[in-house]
Amino acid sequence: MTGYFDAIPPLTFDPDADGPAFRHYDPDRMVMGKRLADHLRFAAAWWHSFCWEGGDPFGGRTFERPWFPADTMDLAERRVDAAFDFFRILGAPFFCFHDHDIRPEGASLAESRDRLNRVADRMGERMADGGPRLLWGTANLFSNRRYMAGAATNPDPDVFAHAAATVRDCLDVTHRLGGENYVLWGGREGYETLLNTDLGRELDQMGRFLSMVVEYKHRIGFKGTILIEPKPQEPTKHQYDFDVATVYGLLKRCGLETEVKVNIEQGHAILAGHSFEHEIALANALGIFGSIDMNRNDPQSGWDTDQFPNNVPDVTLAYYEILRGGGFTTGGTNFDAKIRRQSLDPADLVMAHAGAMDVCARGLTAAAAMLEDDRLEAARRDRYAGWDRPDARAMLDPGATLDGIADRASAAGLDPHPVSGRQEILENLVNRYV
Amino acid sequence: MTGYFDAIPPLTFDPDADGPAFRHYDPDRMVMGKRLADHLRFAAAWWHSFCWEGGDPFGGRTFERPWFPADTMDLAERRVDAAFDFFRILGAPFFCFHDHDIRPEGASLAESRDRLNRVADRMGERMADGGPRLLWGTANLFSNRRYMAGAATNPDPDVFAHAAATVRDCLDVTHRLGGENYVLWGGREGYETLLNTDLGRELDQMGRFLSMVVEYKHRIGFKGTILIEPKPQEPTKHQYDFDVATVYGLLKRCGLETEVKVNIEQGHAILAGHSFEHEIALANALGIFGSIDMNRNDPQSGWDTDQFPNNVPDVTLAYYEILRGGGFTTGGTNFDAKIRRQSLDPADLVMAHAGAMDVCARGLTAAAAMLEDDRLEAARRDRYAGWDRPDARAMLDPGATLDGIADRASAAGLDPHPVSGRQEILENLVNRYV
Amino acid sequence: MTGYFDAIPPLTFDPDADGPAFRHYDPDRMVMGKRLADHLRFAAAWWHSFCWEGGDPFGGRTFERPWFPADTMDLAERRVDAAFDFFRILGAPFFCFHDHDIRPEGASLAESRDRLNRVADRMGERMADGGPRLLWGTANLFSNRRYMAGAATNPDPDVFAHAAATVRDCLDVTHRLGGENYVLWGGREGYETLLNTDLGRELDQMGRFLSMVVEYKHRIGFKGTILIEPKPQEPTKHQYDFDVATVYGLLKRCGLETEVKVNIEQGHAILAGHSFEHEIALANALGIFGSIDMNRNDPQSGWDTDQFPNNVPDVTLAYYEILRGGGFTTGGTNFDAKIRRQSLDPADLVMAHAGAMDVCARGLTAAAAMLEDDRLEAARRDRYAGWDRPDARAMLDPGATLDGIADRASAAGLDPHPVSGRQEILENLVNRYV
Amino acid sequence: MTGYFDAIPPLTFDPDADGPAFRHYDPDRMVMGKRLADHLRFAAAWWHSFCWEGGDPFGGRTFERPWFPADTMDLAERRVDAAFDFFRILGAPFFCFHDHDIRPEGASLAESRDRLNRVADRMGERMADGGPRLLWGTANLFSNRRYMAGAATNPDPDVFAHAAATVRDCLDVTHRLGGENYVLWGGREGYETLLNTDLGRELDQMGRFLSMVVEYKHRIGFKGTILIEPKPQEPTKHQYDFDVATVYGLLKRCGLETEVKVNIEQGHAILAGHSFEHEIALANALGIFGSIDMNRNDPQSGWDTDQFPNNVPDVTLAYYEILRGGGFTTGGTNFDAKIRRQSLDPADLVMAHAGAMDVCARGLTAAAAMLEDDRLEAARRDRYAGWDRPDARAMLDPGATLDGIADRASAAGLDPHPVSGRQEILENLVNRYV
Ligand SMILES: [Co+2]
Ligand SMILES: [Co+2]
Ligand SMILES: [Co+2]
Ligand SMILES: [Co+2]
Ligand SMILES: [Co+2]
Ligand SMILES: [Co+2]
Ligand SMILES: [Co+2]
Ligand SMILES: [Co+2]
Repeated sequence: MTGYFDAIPPLTFDPDADGPAFRHYDPDRMVMGKRLADHLRFAAAWWHSFCWEGGDPFGGRTFERPWFPADTMDLAERRVDAAFDFFRILGAPFFCFHDHDIRPEGASLAESRDRLNRVADRMGERMADGGPRLLWGTANLFSNRRYMAGAATNPDPDVFAHAAATVRDCLDVTHRLGGENYVLWGGREGYETLLNTDLGRELDQMGRFLSMVVEYKHRIGFKGTILIEPKPQEPTKHQYDFDVATVYGLLKRCGLETEVKVNIEQGHAILAGHSFEHEIALANALGIFGSIDMNRNDPQSGWDTDQFPNNVPDVTLAYYEILRGGGFTTGGTNFDAKIRRQSLDPADLVMAHAGAMDVCARGLTAAAAMLEDDRLEAARRDRYAGWDRPDARAMLDPGATLDGIADRASAAGLDPHPVSGRQEILENLVNRYV
Repeated sequence: MTGYFDAIPPLTFDPDADGPAFRHYDPDRMVMGKRLADHLRFAAAWWHSFCWEGGDPFGGRTFERPWFPADTMDLAERRVDAAFDFFRILGAPFFCFHDHDIRPEGASLAESRDRLNRVADRMGERMADGGPRLLWGTANLFSNRRYMAGAATNPDPDVFAHAAATVRDCLDVTHRLGGENYVLWGGREGYETLLNTDLGRELDQMGRFLSMVVEYKHRIGFKGTILIEPKPQEPTKHQYDFDVATVYGLLKRCGLETEVKVNIEQGHAILAGHSFEHEIALANALGIFGSIDMNRNDPQSGWDTDQFPNNVPDVTLAYYEILRGGGFTTGGTNFDAKIRRQSLDPADLVMAHAGAMDVCARGLTAAAAMLEDDRLEAARRDRYAGWDRPDARAMLDPGATLDGIADRASAAGLDPHPVSGRQEILENLVNRYV
Repeated sequence: MTGYFDAIPPLTFDPDADGPAFRHYDPDRMVMGKRLADHLRFAAAWWHSFCWEGGDPFGGRTFERPWFPADTMDLAERRVDAAFDFFRILGAPFFCFHDHDIRPEGASLAESRDRLNRVADRMGERMADGGPRLLWGTANLFSNRRYMAGAATNPDPDVFAHAAATVRDCLDVTHRLGGENYVLWGGREGYETLLNTDLGRELDQMGRFLSMVVEYKHRIGFKGTILIEPKPQEPTKHQYDFDVATVYGLLKRCGLETEVKVNIEQGHAILAGHSFEHEIALANALGIFGSIDMNRNDPQSGWDTDQFPNNVPDVTLAYYEILRGGGFTTGGTNFDAKIRRQSLDPADLVMAHAGAMDVCARGLTAAAAMLEDDRLEAARRDRYAGWDRPDARAMLDPGATLDGIADRASAAGLDPHPVSGRQEILENLVNRYV
Repeated sequence: MTGYFDAIPPLTFDPDADGPAFRHYDPDRMVMGKRLADHLRFAAAWWHSFCWEGGDPFGGRTFERPWFPADTMDLAERRVDAAFDFFRILGAPFFCFHDHDIRPEGASLAESRDRLNRVADRMGERMADGGPRLLWGTANLFSNRRYMAGAATNPDPDVFAHAAATVRDCLDVTHRLGGENYVLWGGREGYETLLNTDLGRELDQMGRFLSMVVEYKHRIGFKGTILIEPKPQEPTKHQYDFDVATVYGLLKRCGLETEVKVNIEQGHAILAGHSFEHEIALANALGIFGSIDMNRNDPQSGWDTDQFPNNVPDVTLAYYEILRGGGFTTGGTNFDAKIRRQSLDPADLVMAHAGAMDVCARGLTAAAAMLEDDRLEAARRDRYAGWDRPDARAMLDPGATLDGIADRASAAGLDPHPVSGRQEILENLVNRYV
């Protein structure tokens, strides 16, 4: 016990509580034949909760944590203890981390690896001791100035090699800690200006890097999923993993579309000009849905604000697409969210997570009810029912030809009459559940 | 001669002119061993210049043209004559059209086809008579209410068939008129709400449709390029041909990445959150660059304003990427641009094109000088020079492994030091040419 | 009875209904001592529901209404009857209209006025017959091509005069029909390009016009409120009534800040880069809050989509600010919303309104509970409690000086310690009510 | 001499130079009867050039400067020397600074003031020694955590007092150093969430603060201009000095519209949804134009990128509005711009400024030619010429009435015919100068 969170008791489900509690998230509630906890698979994220100091581009640290600045192994271990205290209060089944979050970087790759393993040992003990499991690990390939021009896509091959070593070490430790996924986030795999960038070359570098990660994963027997987290921009002007559709094209380009999936973040979807549910639905349609980062952007801010979710109808639509696709397998609901820099207290950190978990519980429960009710899906099936006609299906067969269809359409004097899309009525239907 | 443009003489290159003239566009000027006209391959667009009436969502027709409303074959032919008068004044070597632009729709597919062919006959005569050539034809699959929920991606298979017949007819007439490309623009191939949409099914429909177009093109011996024009949204909330990266993924998904290329519009690039030069550079890197629509959006408007280009530095960067990729083959510079609805006079239409052609001439000439000078390219090559080292190249070979690289990096004690990206100095360099 | 809505019975409050009904909107429910209907003051809008034909920039009419195109007085009267049938089904207490919505424009100002009065007579009869009352009237000063460069801000003084005559006639008819407000919407009071615009002159013209409207209103004894509806752009690049803050400055500039208030539209707030609740809260703080248009934009579309509200938490925050400011006086909740162009059926139109009314009822009820509960307000008061100290209040007195405060601060060795802003905890609190 | 910039000689005007030089900025060139240097009044900004370490939200320091971290008075003085070396190389006539930029904060207000004065003494010596003059000083009221919830608008009155002391000290030192303006920038004068914010109270606090600053300025005999720099958001969700129109309303609200002017930044204009030239033209129309920060945002990034200007046509339109308004008086062209974090070298910093100064020189020269040529202004005058008619002018007189105008319009059978707005032709005209 570090004492930092001592004033806050472990949260339990208590819909009538006035103080700290889950008012909606009952982990053991059965929904569509599965525990709510097993549907949602919540994970807390190390970086925003235990490393971020409250800075923004116009101001520095606002938080006062006893483990800051965590630039020694002692402080880093103190942080581990605080984190596991926090996980215990929250009762979240999973957590996520970057190498950079848990150990101070060493003077060499070897020392960094050694430190990573030592902190991981301590984490492993706490995990064994009833602590949460590891949803995913990842490497921070963007904070150190060596990565200022990218990691796998750096113009300097030594940076590529350095990144390879770092990912190898992170994948090893993720494997050792029983991680269910491994995430690649391309913060600086992109460019600031086309004027100094060789786009084709950088895409090739990225493809090779990714292929080696996949090959290595199989060789060490890591059964988890490799995930890419799309983000269109920020910190760089353009990032190569712009959105789900872009990542799909990259994967097809290097033949990895069955090996790698996506970790979709609500805020990144919005930055790319999409709704969150669009990105999820598209990933499902393309067969690459993996996991989610459930943190929103402020709709009036043009950067990644990484706020906790708080809008039940929005969250419902996201889980609806997830459930339509069969739900999570190795993925889960990670809160890659940070409290506002004015939220100074331990209670702010805890209650931000608790409120978000309640919002997600309401969203998933509503989505499940909507799916079981089937009215929305029945309307969707009806809308496309014409395609069940044999002549319609035939048009999609490989042998169909443009002129064959054209001649038949002309001969038949086709004059299709549109029918209502019923958007508002369907939106009303959704509102019965949220 | 319709008389409508009578007051305006054919434009010639005259840098000192005060009245209507090209002040920069000298079609015969040799640039990088080729006529400027052959580099730029300008095309005027039928729809905005001869069909659009000046309406916007809050107001109707502002233009008074003697051929409006062109809902009879007589008026449509009068419009053909006006258009060719206009082409002659402009001296543009190409034009583009939709079926919908040139003929009133008939009561049946057959009548529509017949009318299309009759107008095309008249156009063919004018083209033979020294008129411009056809850069591309396309089908309007978005204005008629039957297409309100898409064409190839419609929930109603009869609409799919109707669209197939229409594209067949347009491809036929494009072929007959010697078109150098055929464009598919997916205005309504997308959705208004996910709630009533089967994303996977619609993507499959779209892929099949596209495959049939390609198969048909080969069968009739059309040598032109099939182009898709990406656009992220508007009129619909989401369009499947969102941007170049998305289209690449779609093409890979149905194995057409060597058959179909992209027609990139500046305004659509911006709506998708990209710079125009990004989309061109990416298309070149992915091997799918085809043609451009050189019309900009207003940076403060969130919709497709389709304005004529007027910023030489911006246009220069676009042509720089085009020239770096080898320049146009079948593609060209189409002005899918409309004059503002307050620009009522014939002179407005002519001078908007003339000014845009001058801007493009300045841009391409500057881009060519920049490329011939090679300082920018030399800086780019230098930046990646490390990758020429054998050990660096080896990391990109198929046999390289993550742990192999990692072990070598660790053993070597790699500690890469970043070097300046020199962005401002490169931007200054560009400013020497524009 | 026109028959058009015959299949749909008048809607009643029935929370358990499966068919058309209000599931949440019980007009007679008492909330904070007032009927829900009297809090919400719903109004249906004539233009989107009875005039808009389903067109968008890429396609024309999709709706088939028996009164289209309503370009004769007979069709216009048929439309009046349909509208009142619709109002009866909905049971909305108010409606709104433009002159342009209800009568075909005449060949002269006199004929237009005459037609306006004749249709108004018919409307008056239907209103007397238990129909809804008039929330506001307004003049359409943007559709006719004469207004393409603005109305009050037109470079042509004859257009200014034409607009004055039109507003006079609309204000007269609004007064006669017992309208509770009169709205000025500046669709084209702005510019397309600064290059041809005299900004200062146009702002002066607008100020004078507004002053004359206010003077006339008083002279004819119109007791309603004059409202300006801010909108930042669309159809023009820039509009002078950009947002609430801008309108406040304009009003102060011509001394009308106590005479004119604002009608705030959710979608316009968003286009201007604000949340809806911000615009309401600011209008309250500045003393110019009047009424609302409760229609949202799609968060991924950069234009005014005018959709029906469907997100209860969002709507709750808006009504919370309205109730904090004391609720509506002459204003109300107008649905300046249009069904999607694919929503073809009468039921789509009715149910879009019904769903929106339910969403608003939920929102206002939740907001009222939140306000009565007072926990949110208590937290707000606590946060500023330091300002109740005499020395703190003294700093805001007119006699306080910068150096006086500075010297005291320095002498006291002030070193203020920040306290948590508790944003997430407050957001959680809101989620208890929605 | 610190030695840091030793490799770079002072820049001179040399259009044919290949190395570091001004290729366009000839300070002594006469334009419209005034030296170019006296038109442009360039200023370098201390914070981005000498304090910013290259960090962004995803990474830390990239720059290596011998004076970093400048947290001692010795290092701070070393930084002063480096800055003046830099100013000498650039030959810029002005510079700007925050208190926070030049001195490490002390343990108390008194110590901070003392340190400020000691560094200012050293700066004064360097300024006397042929160094540049001070365009403006300002206080950093946003970096320290005490200001996390605002300065003048803080819920804690002690923060208000602390801010007052800080501004007093900065204004004193600005006065002593002969500053020509004093800027207030409201980085955190705004809110993160409305839920914990009392908007009306905060606006009142801000108004009082501003009034005291103005009163103090007069009392100490500071002849410079008090400027507010509008910015809509970032770091906070909403800032009270959103844009020029909003600041105008705030000034009118506290009666300071003749005392305070605006410092307009290109990037902030864009964040607020305006063009830069719009904000300048509006400030001129409202009589509050003061100065500019000539740094752009990237059009695809939703945050304040503060890049150096590089687009001559854009810059030309800004200077055109400045010259139309009579040019700068106490204001100038400040580069509140930062080099990219990958631009590591001293040469990057120098050449970024040099390139920007050339771009501005080209822009202002073109704008002046355009204004002297008068064709654009003649077209503008013509467009409004109708308002010179006596009957037109009479409509704007205070005695004019809505019904008086309406009756005359109706009697005269007014039917105004629109004339072309000629936007494209005017844009072509601009392109003759850039
Ligand atoms: Co994020
Ligand atoms: Co994330
Ligand atoms: Co377009
Ligand atoms: Co186009
Ligand atoms: Co609207
Ligand atoms: Co409205
Ligand atoms: Co800025
Ligand atoms: Co600035």
